[in-house]
Amino acid sequence: MAHPRRRSARACLVGVVHLVGAGPGAPDLLTVRAAQLLARADIVFHDALIHPDTLALAASAVKVAVGKRCGRHSTAQRFINKRLLDAAAKYDVVVRLKGGDPMLFGRAQEEIDALEAANVRCEIVPGVTAAVAAAATLGTSLTQRGRVRTFALATPRVGDGERANDWINGFRQAQAGAIYMGRKDAANIAASLIGAGMAATTPVAIVVDASLPGVEAHYTTLAQLPAFADCEMSGAALLLVGPQFHRRKSGASANIAEVRAAVRRA
Amino acid sequence: MAHPRRRSARACLVGVVHLVGAGPGAPDLLTVRAAQLLARADIVFHDALIHPDTLALAASAVKVAVGKRCGRHSTAQRFINKRLLDAAAKYDVVVRLKGGDPMLFGRAQEEIDALEAANVRCEIVPGVTAAVAAAATLGTSLTQRGRVRTFALATPRVGDGERANDWINGFRQAQAGAIYMGRKDAANIAASLIGAGMAATTPVAIVVDASLPGVEAHYTTLAQLPAFADCEMSGAALLLVGPQFHRRKSGASANIAEVRAAVRRA
Repeated sequence: MAHPRRRSARACLVGVVHLVGAGPGAPDLLTVRAAQLLARADIVFHDALIHPDTLALAASAVKVAVGKRCGRHSTAQRFINKRLLDAAAKYDVVVRLKGGDPMLFGRAQEEIDALEAANVRCEIVPGVTAAVAAAATLGTSLTQRGRVRTFALATPRVGDGERANDWINGFRQAQAGAIYMGRKDAANIAASLIGAGMAATTPVAIVVDASLPGVEAHYTTLAQLPAFADCEMSGAALLLVGPQFHRRKSGASANIAEVRAAVRRA
Repeated sequence: MAHPRRRSARACLVGVVHLVGAGPGAPDLLTVRAAQLLARADIVFHDALIHPDTLALAASAVKVAVGKRCGRHSTAQRFINKRLLDAAAKYDVVVRLKGGDPMLFGRAQEEIDALEAANVRCEIVPGVTAAVAAAATLGTSLTQRGRVRTFALATPRVGDGERANDWINGFRQAQAGAIYMGRKDAANIAASLIGAGMAATTPVAIVVDASLPGVEAHYTTLAQLPAFADCEMSGAALLLVGPQFHRRKSGASANIAEVRAAVRRA
């Protein structure tokens, strides 16, 4: 049973809203600062895919799930902004907890702007983004000395006023990159990147649920990527595209084996 | 006085080397997993710019600074690889602590490959990279719905076999990006990006010592960036280039003011 602390008489008139990165999934990949903030949070608005053990750190907070559903993004975002403002008027420590890092594909700007416009103080706690967690799983560095000095982070998800493929050229010109929220669009992504001149043989690694016990890594190429779109993979998937993302000589990642062994021991 | 634990008789024959991201600078932006690993580390090989409070978490470990000096990268890297292997033969828990995330501009691949070739198990703990910490400082999201869906991470630092400017085109084509280790090359970077067709008026934010008490944010444009190269700025600088990196209406970042206020209170 949660017992949120209402604003004390001594406190300032409006609380602080903390936009906090929850990291890639594993609860211990949260930052120390984020863990401390959750422990003293009065209310936590969280995305859909936050780990239950992470939420449990906010022991005395009201928890509000605000995961957005496809097709109703804009309405939902305005509703979230409104709820953050209402909460700041009522509580001292308001946490908006987002998967990964808030400033990468997290729509943080819309929340920051709404809070600033209402003169509500906003603090941002950065987090570990999915791409580096996936790289840790694979044992493959995103940048590579002598080969990859430009790494692109992109998403095919379309917002208001965006053309579907306006990210393709920038991604194609980088030496390697990660595609967030791209699995359902895999066929279109492969065709578009090949159409923009990327070699069909370019290696692609698909990492599902990076950092979690059920983590999966699949290796393919751009040409064969569409076949993977039809496979059964549940969980959040990241596509890594570039010359270094072939299967490593040592076979499956030591990190995957280790995660699973740790789960069996537990 | 450090009392490293030598390998116990029960333990396996070779220790595990953990490549660990120390995050952007502030000790509490370390992950919980990294903090726990440091607490049980026998020996820690660390980069030059790790915060003393972060190192202090490795209370019972031998600490070895292995910061590289310009111009002797390759020799130094081979020497580090050798020291990691030697340590794995002697200790159970070996930590290689790198600023930010190990898989972004951290030369992790060379260490992973050397460990794999010697059959030494290697675990990677991802960290918070400087670009998202800088974004948190500025209150400006790296990706922007409707405007920036491709964000590039790049460095002008040249390794063996690389041409000086082979990162420019990929960076120029992305909708926005961050340049690591680029301050000393600022004049060349600005000229090269403008030469590749990027608008001279493109906003640039320079964030020095992101997440630390002395954090600084400067706003300029590509055309005026060279003037900043001559300024006195100590500390690690990140350049953020893209349409969103203008000074925000609310003035200097609330996060900077907050960090400084916290330091004064301490």
